[in-house]
This record gives sequence, C-alpha cells and structure tokens, in this order.
Amino acid sequence: MILLDGKKTAADLKQEIALSVQKLKKQGKKIPHLAAVLVGENGASMTYVNAKVKACELVGFKSTLIKLPEDTTEEKLLQEIETLNNNKNVDGFIVQLPLPKHINEQKIVMAVNPDKDVDGFHPVNVGKMTLDLPCFLPATPFGILELLERYNVETSGKNVVIIGRSHIVGRPMSILMSQKRTAGNATVTVAHSRTKNLKEITLQADIIVAALGKPEFLTGAMVKNGVTIIDVGITRVEDTTKKRGYRLAGDVHFESVAPKSAFITPVPGGVGPMTIAMLMKNTLLACERKEN
Amino acid sequence: MILLDGKKTAADLKQEIALSVQKLKKQGKKIPHLAAVLVGENGASMTYVNAKVKACELVGFKSTLIKLPEDTTEEKLLQEIETLNNNKNVDGFIVQLPLPKHINEQKIVMAVNPDKDVDGFHPVNVGKMTLDLPCFLPATPFGILELLERYNVETSGKNVVIIGRSHIVGRPMSILMSQKRTAGNATVTVAHSRTKNLKEITLQADIIVAALGKPEFLTGAMVKNGVTIIDVGITRVEDTTKKRGYRLAGDVHFESVAPKSAFITPVPGGVGPMTIAMLMKNTLLACERKEN
Repeated sequence: MILLDGKKTAADLKQEIALSVQKLKKQGKKIPHLAAVLVGENGASMTYVNAKVKACELVGFKSTLIKLPEDTTEEKLLQEIETLNNNKNVDGFIVQLPLPKHINEQKIVMAVNPDKDVDGFHPVNVGKMTLDLPCFLPATPFGILELLERYNVETSGKNVVIIGRSHIVGRPMSILMSQKRTAGNATVTVAHSRTKNLKEITLQADIIVAALGKPEFLTGAMVKNGVTIIDVGITRVEDTTKKRGYRLAGDVHFESVAPKSAFITPVPGGVGPMTIAMLMKNTLLACERKEN
Repeated sequence: MILLDGKKTAADLKQEIALSVQKLKKQGKKIPHLAAVLVGENGASMTYVNAKVKACELVGFKSTLIKLPEDTTEEKLLQEIETLNNNKNVDGFIVQLPLPKHINEQKIVMAVNPDKDVDGFHPVNVGKMTLDLPCFLPATPFGILELLERYNVETSGKNVVIIGRSHIVGRPMSILMSQKRTAGNATVTVAHSRTKNLKEITLQADIIVAALGKPEFLTGAMVKNGVTIIDVGITRVEDTTKKRGYRLAGDVHFESVAPKSAFITPVPGGVGPMTIAMLMKNTLLACERKEN
C-alpha cells in the first residue's frame, strides 16, 4: 500500500511555483497577484482564506484579502467584484463560499470575469472543461489529477467510480477522468444517493473517488484488492479522547480499506493540501496568460 | 418490446409547438424566428438545414436561411454572426457544422450570443448544463430525455451505460441522466474507445445509449433481457439490394437486440426526428424568454 501523500506533493508543487515566481522576478515581469474576498466571519471560511493567503506568501505571490462584514449587500459585493475584474494588478481572485444567505451565490459566481476565475466556478470555465478546452480547472479535481499523475497511477481503461455528484468535486472529476488526458481515459461511473447497488459497483472499481461527505462511509468490504482510493471527504467527528474534542474523518474507513489498497490518500494530508496548491497553480497560469 | 417512436413523438411535439405559436399570434405577441447559417455545399449539411427550415414552416415559426459560399472567410462569417446577435427579430440561430477547414469552428461557436445559441453549443450553455442551471440543452440529448419521459421509462437508480464521449451526445447525455431531473437520477457509466471490458459493462446496463458511430456495433450478446436501448448512430451502409445503393444503420444491431429489449429506438425514426423537434422547442423557449 502506497500513501498518496498530498502534503508532500503540494509542498513540491509550491516549491516549483516559487521557482517560477523567482524566474518572473529576474525577468522583470509581473509577479502573480491573488485576491480573496471573505464576507462575514464563518470560522471554516476564515481558516481556508488564511491558508490561501499564507500559501501566496510562501510561493512569493502578492495577495490581497478583502474582508467584508456579514451584512454586506449583494450590490456592494457585486461592486467589489467589478473593481477586481477591472484591476489590472490582480491576476485572479476568489470569493470564499459559502456566502451569507441574503446573497445570491450564483449571481456572484457569474459576475467574476472568467479570465480571473481561478476557482474555475464560472459557467464559461465549467463549459470549457466539459468541452475539453483550455480553462481554469476547479482546484480539488485539478489536485486529484495532479496527485494521480505524480504517483504514476494508471487510469487509462480502468474502471473508476466517483461517489458523489457535486458541482465542485464529483461532477468535474467524472468528466475529467473520462477525457483523453493524463490521469484520464478511464471508464467512469458516477454513483450518488439514488444509486441502488453501490457495493456491487464499488467492488468492480479499480479507482474510487469518495466525495459524498459521509464520514467513513466506504469500508473494506466494499472494495476489491489492489484498488486506488481518493478520499475527498473531511468531516469533524466527535472524539472525546482528543483534546479539541473531535478528529477529522474522511469518507473512507481507512483502517479497513487501506490494507486492500494499492494507493490511498490519507485524511488529513491527502486531497486537502493539493487544493490550495492548485489554486496557486491557477493563479500563476492566469498571470502568465495575461503576459502572453 | 416497445418501439420508442421518435417520428410520432416529434410530430406530437411539433403540434404542441404549433399550438403555442398560434397562442402567441392571438395574443399579438412576437412569433419565434430561427435563422440558420450554411457555409458551402456539403450534401448532408444541406439536407439537415433544409429539414430545419421545413420544421419552422410546419410549426409556424419565421425562418431565415443564410447561404454563404464555401470560400467565405472566417472574418466574414464572424460579421454575419454579429449581425444575427444584434438582430432583435431573430430569437435564435444556428451555424450548421461542419464548417470548411479554413474556418476555426471553436471561434465561431464562441461568437454566438449564448442567449440565441439554440444549439446549446456555447461553453456558457454547456457550463450551465453541467451545473444544472437553466440553459439551452443540445438538441439530441434533449430529444432523448423527452423520448424517455414521454414513454415513462424509469431512469432513477437505474444503471445507464453511454457508449461514446462526444461533446454533442455522449458527454451531455452522461451529465444529464445522472442529475436530479426527470429522466435523470441514474447511475451513469461512460464507455469509450479506451474501455477494456465493454461487454461486461453493457451486460449490467438497464439502459444503453449507443452513440459511437459504428454501424450495428451493439449486438444481442452484449445486452441483458429487459434493457432499454437508445440508438443515436446513423450511418450509410452500402446495400446493393437498395435502389439508392445504401441503407441507414444505427449503432445497434436491431435484429438481435430488439427481442431482448423492453424499449428500443428504431433507426431511422428514433432519435433523429427528435433532434429537430427539440431545436424548435429551444427556439420557442428563446422567444418566450425574451418576451418575459
């Protein structure tokens, strides 16, 4: 069993990006600049945004954090986005989700200039992804592809089962892995809450991407020997033996699945760290594209 | 075995659309107007475009056919598209594909105003489809959903195998049938040229959509009893017993598959007629949306 070490791979990637930044500097070119908009004080969102800002510092990007109060109006947020769209200094930006309920998220996502949409959430980028055209790939699926590629996990002609059909992970993963590309050309099945014979399906899978958000859902009895496991889930589960009162659990029951696996991502330290690294990658790409 | 009669269903649909047009007329509202651009003299393209114009007449739409010579420049075609984008009288338009080789098809598709893109080919529409947002669905997948729905074919929780991953049929079908929608909620697998164990996969399918473009590829030995078959293929196969020297063949070997099927589309007269009907439907929707 080989651990797909997202923490190490993300660190490698960030180092490569840092080298690219140094090269840009030496050539007297523009340094990538990522902006992040955070509305309100959601604890998880604050943690994520801070991690993104920190990653920018690490790789040598400029970063701007725009903090807006919880009661920011939709109109005000749209103005903020328009300003970022027009700011030539900013190569890419993200609006941290979820947003407060009085703001229409879809409207906000649609307002971002697709050329600066480093989250890959705008329909133009999603459409280009679906049509296999150059675009910003959403960070989590992009990170999983990168992880599979760097560990030379064979995907061509393999049976891949994606559990979950979310817009951010399940759906794009299923599209990307069945396209003609590295870490692609797989025969992909999307399973979800309406799937009736899940165990039968997962038992035939060479690769399983678990992205349903149910802690320790996928057990050893549901997978065959030699399977490759990508665990996208990360949920806080009460654990009184821990000081902080909880532990982080993936969608995979690691203890029973790992012994049967050829490759498996740990949680934490698997897919999670890759996501932020790929956001950095997208920002670098946005900057380089603008230069050309 | 029940034939999924696309010819009849398309006729029903067109009659419903004709009634809507009469209603619009009575209310003194604008009549839907579809324009089609045809470049060159490709025989199949001319046949398709003429069929679309005819369908417009049948349902009571206005239609405009813009014929351009084979040597039309990309620039000239882009100008034509810009004119149609700005023509308030035109609700929707299509540029018949394929285009002559000196024209960049992707550039042309991108130039069409997404609000008039009744073919559903623009990345914005493809992205919205992928994200389950209101959009113009591409006509062939839209027609298949309509056919399944009108014949009350149960799809929820069923194993669906799509053979083919084209941008126009396989990919959108796979996305749509796994979404939460009528004729959706299925567990969908996309198979393609790199799939290694196709027969094993199709034998487990409750519904098969064959869209690979290989005449009579899917045989009775590859399907289980009670399967539902959607045959998207339509290829001219040499046949000296026919006056015209060929016959039209689907991707399914009808003689061996039909006896095992619960539902099956014939070729011709299955998916084909639905495609044009759905183009009419999209044009009606484009007109109604503009009115609101």
